[in-house]
Amino acid sequence: MTVEITGFDWVPDFAKGFVRDLRVRWACEEIGLPYAMRLMDPRNRPHAYFDEQPWGQVPAVVDGDIHMFESGAILLHLGERDARLLPADRQARADAISWLFAAYNSVEPMLLELGNVEIFSAGEQWAELRKPSLLAAIGQKLDRLATAIDGRDWLAGQFSIADIAMTTVLRQAEGSGLLAERPVLLAYLERAIARPAFRAALSAQLADFKPEPVAA
Amino acid sequence: MTVEITGFDWVPDFAKGFVRDLRVRWACEEIGLPYAMRLMDPRNRPHAYFDEQPWGQVPAVVDGDIHMFESGAILLHLGERDARLLPADRQARADAISWLFAAYNSVEPMLLELGNVEIFSAGEQWAELRKPSLLAAIGQKLDRLATAIDGRDWLAGQFSIADIAMTTVLRQAEGSGLLAERPVLLAYLERAIARPAFRAALSAQLADFKPEPVAA
Repeated sequence: MTVEITGFDWVPDFAKGFVRDLRVRWACEEIGLPYAMRLMDPRNRPHAYFDEQPWGQVPAVVDGDIHMFESGAILLHLGERDARLLPADRQARADAISWLFAAYNSVEPMLLELGNVEIFSAGEQWAELRKPSLLAAIGQKLDRLATAIDGRDWLAGQFSIADIAMTTVLRQAEGSGLLAERPVLLAYLERAIARPAFRAALSAQLADFKPEPVAA
Repeated sequence: MTVEITGFDWVPDFAKGFVRDLRVRWACEEIGLPYAMRLMDPRNRPHAYFDEQPWGQVPAVVDGDIHMFESGAILLHLGERDARLLPADRQARADAISWLFAAYNSVEPMLLELGNVEIFSAGEQWAELRKPSLLAAIGQKLDRLATAIDGRDWLAGQFSIADIAMTTVLRQAEGSGLLAERPVLLAYLERAIARPAFRAALSAQLADFKPEPVAA
């Protein structure tokens, strides 16, 4: 049965290739699970959509008779369907789920704030003043992550939803120079985004965006 | 078998009752699962602890032959052991896991930054300048959460790990006035923290902190 994923048919340029339905598309591509997109305009979300997704964000998913929201929860759901996304070995599974939450709660929050500083509040005085301490905090976290990944290809022994989560989170730091300073992390990211399933998911998301309207 | 949970034997006053082993203790107390604490001093963490918990934070858990970190992952693990923490009905389970990630990734990041503004960077110019827009963003998120909770007691039909996560996250906003302005959320929080299992977990965490050294 085809999984339905919600996405946007337009976003500002800086968000293209970063909207979080990418994470779910990637997981589907890894296991050959067919999916259909339900696209909406983020500037004009149907009011009823907030009943499906409390923040009005994407993705939400309908998989048969189950509906879910939050990309982390959806990754876990897909992982439970297929051991290529979530290993069956009990400790490896525990590792993958620990790292899944680490991506969503220990690493991504700082990078969301970096997005506030560098994009949404660019030019504001607080953002300029905040940036050095934020970059330092992110750098410390990334140092710990690099130590944990050093010497292995993937977070949980095999490729898993933890790597989908962590590398889509790390991509948000690519412009900052923080990854280039940490070759272990840069190599990890490059290993992940070289996967055919990532390339397919990224191309599919980019193809779903309508062209920008030409200014009058 | 007793679950081993790592925690701290000292934290600054503002953190007492908020360290995240509280979430795991609470889940254990809800189902009568015995646990033993392995306490350490956060100012002097054993270097080897970073092999168990990549950020050096608490909690990490050993449950039989499984070890895990990240409180969200541990809550999920405990939920899978007992339907009182994670409902067996497939859609209710999907709801609980969606809301679990919502607490950790859609709500808590903003409140972590509020902690940076109000506590760790208190008095810094950027924090003063940042505070209004941050409070506005949190308020918008909490309005959505209040809409979602209005008319029900718990996020997923029954009390679950989603409520442990969301209400321990919301407690971090108690000092801001944001909850008092949203009676639905305040009632939800009060419903949660009135549970005997929460009271037991909180008392146990507070009892584990050593008294402050008397200044010389």
